[in-house]
Amino acid sequence: MISANDLQQRFLRLRENKLFEFFVISVIILSALLIGAKTYDIPAVAMDVFMVLDVGITLFFLTEIIVRMIAEGSLRRFFRGGWNVFDFVIVVASLVPLEDSEAALLGRLLRIFRVLRLVSIIPELRVLLSAFLTAIPRMGYVALLMFIVFYIYAAVGSMFFHRINPQLWENISIAMLTLFRVATFEDWTDVMYETMAVYPLSWLYYLTFIFVVAFVFLNMMIGIVLETLQREHESQSLESGEGEAAEVHSIETRTADMAQRMARMEAMLEQLTADSKRTSK
Amino acid sequence: MISANDLQQRFLRLRENKLFEFFVISVIILSALLIGAKTYDIPAVAMDVFMVLDVGITLFFLTEIIVRMIAEGSLRRFFRGGWNVFDFVIVVASLVPLEDSEAALLGRLLRIFRVLRLVSIIPELRVLLSAFLTAIPRMGYVALLMFIVFYIYAAVGSMFFHRINPQLWENISIAMLTLFRVATFEDWTDVMYETMAVYPLSWLYYLTFIFVVAFVFLNMMIGIVLETLQREHESQSLESGEGEAAEVHSIETRTADMAQRMARMEAMLEQLTADSKRTSK
Amino acid sequence: MISANDLQQRFLRLRENKLFEFFVISVIILSALLIGAKTYDIPAVAMDVFMVLDVGITLFFLTEIIVRMIAEGSLRRFFRGGWNVFDFVIVVASLVPLEDSEAALLGRLLRIFRVLRLVSIIPELRVLLSAFLTAIPRMGYVALLMFIVFYIYAAVGSMFFHRINPQLWENISIAMLTLFRVATFEDWTDVMYETMAVYPLSWLYYLTFIFVVAFVFLNMMIGIVLETLQREHESQSLESGEGEAAEVHSIETRTADMAQRMARMEAMLEQLTADSKRTSK
Amino acid sequence: MISANDLQQRFLRLRENKLFEFFVISVIILSALLIGAKTYDIPAVAMDVFMVLDVGITLFFLTEIIVRMIAEGSLRRFFRGGWNVFDFVIVVASLVPLEDSEAALLGRLLRIFRVLRLVSIIPELRVLLSAFLTAIPRMGYVALLMFIVFYIYAAVGSMFFHRINPQLWENISIAMLTLFRVATFEDWTDVMYETMAVYPLSWLYYLTFIFVVAFVFLNMMIGIVLETLQREHESQSLESGEGEAAEVHSIETRTADMAQRMARMEAMLEQLTADSKRTSK
Repeated sequence: MISANDLQQRFLRLRENKLFEFFVISVIILSALLIGAKTYDIPAVAMDVFMVLDVGITLFFLTEIIVRMIAEGSLRRFFRGGWNVFDFVIVVASLVPLEDSEAALLGRLLRIFRVLRLVSIIPELRVLLSAFLTAIPRMGYVALLMFIVFYIYAAVGSMFFHRINPQLWENISIAMLTLFRVATFEDWTDVMYETMAVYPLSWLYYLTFIFVVAFVFLNMMIGIVLETLQREHESQSLESGEGEAAEVHSIETRTADMAQRMARMEAMLEQLTADSKRTSK
Repeated sequence: MISANDLQQRFLRLRENKLFEFFVISVIILSALLIGAKTYDIPAVAMDVFMVLDVGITLFFLTEIIVRMIAEGSLRRFFRGGWNVFDFVIVVASLVPLEDSEAALLGRLLRIFRVLRLVSIIPELRVLLSAFLTAIPRMGYVALLMFIVFYIYAAVGSMFFHRINPQLWENISIAMLTLFRVATFEDWTDVMYETMAVYPLSWLYYLTFIFVVAFVFLNMMIGIVLETLQREHESQSLESGEGEAAEVHSIETRTADMAQRMARMEAMLEQLTADSKRTSK
Repeated sequence: MISANDLQQRFLRLRENKLFEFFVISVIILSALLIGAKTYDIPAVAMDVFMVLDVGITLFFLTEIIVRMIAEGSLRRFFRGGWNVFDFVIVVASLVPLEDSEAALLGRLLRIFRVLRLVSIIPELRVLLSAFLTAIPRMGYVALLMFIVFYIYAAVGSMFFHRINPQLWENISIAMLTLFRVATFEDWTDVMYETMAVYPLSWLYYLTFIFVVAFVFLNMMIGIVLETLQREHESQSLESGEGEAAEVHSIETRTADMAQRMARMEAMLEQLTADSKRTSK
Repeated sequence: MISANDLQQRFLRLRENKLFEFFVISVIILSALLIGAKTYDIPAVAMDVFMVLDVGITLFFLTEIIVRMIAEGSLRRFFRGGWNVFDFVIVVASLVPLEDSEAALLGRLLRIFRVLRLVSIIPELRVLLSAFLTAIPRMGYVALLMFIVFYIYAAVGSMFFHRINPQLWENISIAMLTLFRVATFEDWTDVMYETMAVYPLSWLYYLTFIFVVAFVFLNMMIGIVLETLQREHESQSLESGEGEAAEVHSIETRTADMAQRMARMEAMLEQLTADSKRTSK
């Protein structure tokens, strides 16, 4: 019989195995293709094959996550890893039964998110997503500011225009959706010409809105992007030891050394000068 | 009886109180929700509740600003703060009576701007808005240049096209609005095809306009955004003492020290050399 | 009688006069407003006033440029300044007579460009425009690359699609205009769905085009913008002596001095060591 | 008789000849104009001229590439150059016969790509394209992430909406095309309002999609652009020896020298101190 520790060691080796990883990626892609294929009109025979494959994939994912749990040694340690929790939720969610008509739709929906396991298994994508996520909170206040702008304009808009076109301005939520449409420039002049027939000056409302939102929005987006890129770029330069940031850093360290050495040298020179004076007396 | 100074101290403590601040923010949000709720069709009963709440919120804001005025000690000192004036204007403006049909609409409109008090009470939003505002004037000349471009194109457009479609080109103001529409790419080909039927070369007019405006506009927007970000980023780096800008600054200071020390060292060495020569004679 | 030299001195003083400059700017703005006003339906009386004003402004501009010519001293020196030529062309062009029906339209058109004199008289706008113009040539090759992409796609498009919709794809020039429309996302799916009905794979044509153009175009635009901003920013930092670029420059100069001083110090130390050895012998 | 080596030398000189290069560029442009001209309705006579010109250009290109092959000395060395292969493929592809109706279309299509030879013959365009191509792979993972986002949203969309409008959501490929349309803001509200009639909350689907895609897409595009520009800018600064990057690099080298010299100086000072102590004893 195999001891628990022995099993853990085996599973650990399995998890680290490149071939196994490649196989897992293949199954994820197969699962993605299956999801895509189901959106086409397919003959009943193929449907049955798909069903079998689906069950197989579900079981495989279940097995794989159990292997990783055992390989980790303790459940607590397993769930401490954010990406493990991410995978666990996806796998468990896709266990929702297939048959019952209502749940079936939910089941299919949940199985779509198995594609996201590609993100958690490819290290580069994991790094990319982490970089994005760490950059977002800094921009939270900009998002809040943008929401305030939308809210005020939507309140004004629904107050003045709700009788002109209730479909676009009936209440504040619908007005916010309409304003989002204006912000994307999607047929926004149709919206404007309609209200200008009643309030000829309402172009002021749209133009100021577009300027403010374009400005704040661009700020937010470009801000996040540049933040992410710059951080990545700088850390890369420091790691590789090449590029401006790395050179500045090396100058920083070197001049610190030089300053210390110089202090020692000055002390010695002072000593020599004192000696020299004593001697010459 | 409480002395005036005592009252000021109490109000000062109240203003600094975190719980009080939190309460003020809650009232602002409640006020915003109320404004949003009124845009929905609501039963008369709820309307009455809203009316009472509205009066309550108005009184609360009035009380809060008086508390801050007394806490500040002198009215002059209170009005020296830009954000205090901002808050004061919003609160006073929302005192416009509710009932009279004409004024009611104005009253409701003015009360919407109470949402802006969120900006003045959350320090991060205040900093953000200040950063935006300080970046804008630098771009004023770019805005002027853009206006000149719009003006010239609108004059040419309304001169040649006003007989083709008066709704779009009747006079210079309407033509400028039409050009703004073209600049946002909103159904701009419909505008172009219409004039191309009469002037086949008028695509030149639209294409040059789009290139010039896209270029100047992008310049202005990206310029402001990058200016704001870079300034913020550099000052942050200098404050935290990390990053390239901080390292360069520390090298700057250190090499200045090193240069002084070196001058002293050279003087001592010259002295030693002179002594040594004298001795060896 | 006034001598020619005396006249030159007077006109030079007049040209430098702040009040005179302000007056010139006012006349330019008045001229711009006049151009704008003429696009409105105006009563005949006002029209007559406008005509008089127009003649007045034209004469004023003529006088002003003659004053500047005399102030400059020699015509050759006057025409050596690019902005002088710019002004001269605008003023002379607006001398085209008003009355003759055909020429009148041309005359009005040419008078519109008088607004551009705002650019030549305000130094900040002049600097701005110069910065733009110097940044453009560097991007010429990117523009050429973009033209090649448009040309190839237009040739392919007009070859395959000209029978589907001659209005959009009849020949290579019309196809390029259609592609520009696709590049601005203006009802591009209508264009695509039409050709997809015949060539179901033609979405590949549109998608690759959009990706390539968006990429090259963004590159060109952002490139020019950043180039302009960065150059301006760096030169400003070096001028004011503040900011990272200035600090790096000051470190550069200082370390060069330090290296020289150090070489001198080492020479002295070597001398001292030699002396010391001789003494101790 | 001319020896093979002699011929190679002659062809090498021909290839390097500026006039020959200029002539090649002229032929490429003529070829491009010919392709463009053929998209117009042209009389039969001109068509015959074009045919002759076409054969002439094809032969010229064939000759030119053979000249370059011989000039290079060995075929292996010729095909080692990426741009040579590029040219060879274009020239060979355009040898497809003109007459046969089916092949004629293919032949015309292949001849269009001769315009691309402009890229391979103008060094600046070659550098530009290389810079673009080297920047792309780094962004491959971002493109993969974007594809995953599109895939998941398309799967969800086609699952829920395929009964509402099969033309837009029939299967996952059509849904991805529809989502690309939404991403370009092209009549996206029409798509949204249609599904909102059945699923009132489906605006959430579109808004989250737009935010995620705009963010990832912007990231990818701006990332590539900035990467390309920055690399080019830095290498230019290092080459010309001007600008911040060059200064930082020169400081780096100089401080390294200074640190070494300082170490030597300290050693001498220690020696002197030791001597001085010995002497004073």
